[in-house]
Amino acid sequence: MTDSPGAALRDLRERKPLIHQITNYVVMNETANVTLAIGALPVMAHAVEEVEEMASVAGALVLNIGTLSSHWIDAMLRAGKAANAAGVPVVLDPVGVGATRLRTDTAKRILAEVDVAIVRGNAAEVAALAGLEAEIRGVEAIGAAAGGLAIARTAASGLDVVASVTGPVDHVSDGTRTLAVANGDPLLAAITGSGCMASTLTGCFVAVRIDAPVDAAAFALAAFGVAAEDAAQGADGPGTFHARLYDTLYALTPESLDERANIGDT
Amino acid sequence: MTDSPGAALRDLRERKPLIHQITNYVVMNETANVTLAIGALPVMAHAVEEVEEMASVAGALVLNIGTLSSHWIDAMLRAGKAANAAGVPVVLDPVGVGATRLRTDTAKRILAEVDVAIVRGNAAEVAALAGLEAEIRGVEAIGAAAGGLAIARTAASGLDVVASVTGPVDHVSDGTRTLAVANGDPLLAAITGSGCMASTLTGCFVAVRIDAPVDAAAFALAAFGVAAEDAAQGADGPGTFHARLYDTLYALTPESLDERANIGDT
Amino acid sequence: MTDSPGAALRDLRERKPLIHQITNYVVMNETANVTLAIGALPVMAHAVEEVEEMASVAGALVLNIGTLSSHWIDAMLRAGKAANAAGVPVVLDPVGVGATRLRTDTAKRILAEVDVAIVRGNAAEVAALAGLEAEIRGVEAIGAAAGGLAIARTAASGLDVVASVTGPVDHVSDGTRTLAVANGDPLLAAITGSGCMASTLTGCFVAVRIDAPVDAAAFALAAFGVAAEDAAQGADGPGTFHARLYDTLYALTPESLDERANIGDT
Repeated sequence: MTDSPGAALRDLRERKPLIHQITNYVVMNETANVTLAIGALPVMAHAVEEVEEMASVAGALVLNIGTLSSHWIDAMLRAGKAANAAGVPVVLDPVGVGATRLRTDTAKRILAEVDVAIVRGNAAEVAALAGLEAEIRGVEAIGAAAGGLAIARTAASGLDVVASVTGPVDHVSDGTRTLAVANGDPLLAAITGSGCMASTLTGCFVAVRIDAPVDAAAFALAAFGVAAEDAAQGADGPGTFHARLYDTLYALTPESLDERANIGDT
Repeated sequence: MTDSPGAALRDLRERKPLIHQITNYVVMNETANVTLAIGALPVMAHAVEEVEEMASVAGALVLNIGTLSSHWIDAMLRAGKAANAAGVPVVLDPVGVGATRLRTDTAKRILAEVDVAIVRGNAAEVAALAGLEAEIRGVEAIGAAAGGLAIARTAASGLDVVASVTGPVDHVSDGTRTLAVANGDPLLAAITGSGCMASTLTGCFVAVRIDAPVDAAAFALAAFGVAAEDAAQGADGPGTFHARLYDTLYALTPESLDERANIGDT
Repeated sequence: MTDSPGAALRDLRERKPLIHQITNYVVMNETANVTLAIGALPVMAHAVEEVEEMASVAGALVLNIGTLSSHWIDAMLRAGKAANAAGVPVVLDPVGVGATRLRTDTAKRILAEVDVAIVRGNAAEVAALAGLEAEIRGVEAIGAAAGGLAIARTAASGLDVVASVTGPVDHVSDGTRTLAVANGDPLLAAITGSGCMASTLTGCFVAVRIDAPVDAAAFALAAFGVAAEDAAQGADGPGTFHARLYDTLYALTPESLDERANIGDT
């Protein structure tokens, strides 16, 4: 391919796309900060009165169901449809799907009513969403990454989306083409919201690679993984790692990203 | 006693209990991160449609009234009752009780309708909840720790809970047996949510010590206090202290906790 | 003038005013932490059942429309009126005004129904609120600072408030007297919520300078700017800068603030 994660990062920093996020309360500050750190502009808005207006002018829309309320679901559907109408790519993070019926039903409803470009979740979440066999233990389905490749490929075909399944090795697939991304650090699992941050970065990259969502999703995970590798250097644990993660995303250069991104065909 | 905080920490890290938290907007990220740092799994869920399902499979339920809305109160009551039915211990953090009628009434209603195992608050909050004389100045009733022992003992008897009253020295009581915990650092009072973090850690420990809530509450405060002591070393102020607090909770070993926990009978 | 930012900081730390904040989900933890770091006490409360009670006993009320919902708007109006009735100064942060009709309409409604002492926003937001020509690109209208002085002066007259317009150089005006504040660091634009933090600090300072809102607003921005200058020293990027910002606000002395505050008449 002639494209590269570094080229996409360069475009992202030039265009500074506005990333509209309707996300959970736990991670809003964190996902806004990764958006700024990578070089895009975050906007959080969830009121039904304004989400369509906001989504239609955004570079991407990220929907994250981590802390649902009924009126937020309505806002997500409205925003998703407005994004679709405006040609704005939509990323869905199905946090905790499989853990409760509300989450599973909501994620499925969003997929049914909105044209979602990319679903980014862990193996258990994506498997549950696609109706594949999976065991989910709460939201942090640590260790469920086994079979990530198969889940990504099958879920992508079944759900008609790009499936981006994160784990020790990440897998991104449109059902036909599947990429593996082997960047990252175990400390990512020790901070809350690392998956949500990955979804937001996916939104940032797909905003500048609308027609190449598989590449965009892999580029985002590579950028996040390389930044995590850098952040782990000199960190004393999850707290200082977390603070450093914004530093390293901010300092990440296109050249360094191209050199260190570990993206492979499968 | 043959049990110890280190033994409980070891159990916690082996069992990785799921800690369901219905808490305030201000601290959700922070309490999720302390849950991960100590070795348990956090889940935040507040929708009435899912709280019963989530609470009934959790290892503990933590209710925190720091930023109430009416539908959140309903969710707390439902979750609490579901936790009771499933034998899941419930921790209540009565943030700001005494400051407004809504907070006082809500905390009392939760105590009336839900079997709460442990109430964790500062002296002013617990005193107000128990109808004891107290002066509350907003939520941060700094300096109100005087009389913590008496408040813990009297509130425990009056409310029929384990009362965990934090301050310069913490006091945990079931009305009969009272423990004092003398770990911690003054910088804890310089960051928001340190009390909420203590409540969440209380939930983590009681999840593995269901039948010993007095010990669980004291173990949690000792673990938090020792981690705070370590975090203060090398911190330049409340911001770096805060980041380091997750590092030191994560790095805390059972051996170190047993050696340094300053828990005494009163 | 005989007053100084250091004198106000000294008063603030002696009186420890309670700062009631009805703010957005993204920054609640951060604005609570800057409140503590500067030496005041934060309280977050948004329920219509309690906001009047809370606002009327506060030292200042900060309204921030960053993530609106309809019931929050009602709470802001009630709190604002209660604050007015009790003589408590009100600060409004019109986040994202101009980006959606909901935000513009809500900010205008608050101004119409509540006696707002200080509006703190970036140039684009304040311009949009005052009906001045401006281009807003999402919430982060970076680069829109040009014309800050003119916008501050005109908006102050038109809206009958003190306008506090932040940017590379900040401008605070009551329409007649205008101060410029030239402290700060570019990293402030790389973290989310820095504007919201500035608004909260404005609330902290006006709580101890009720009759001098122009000075209070300038003092707050100088304090924030000096702390940012210190935080940038030794930071490796926005994440460590952010953590250090609480350290440096906490460590800021009245003497250092008076020496380094770069406040000038225009």
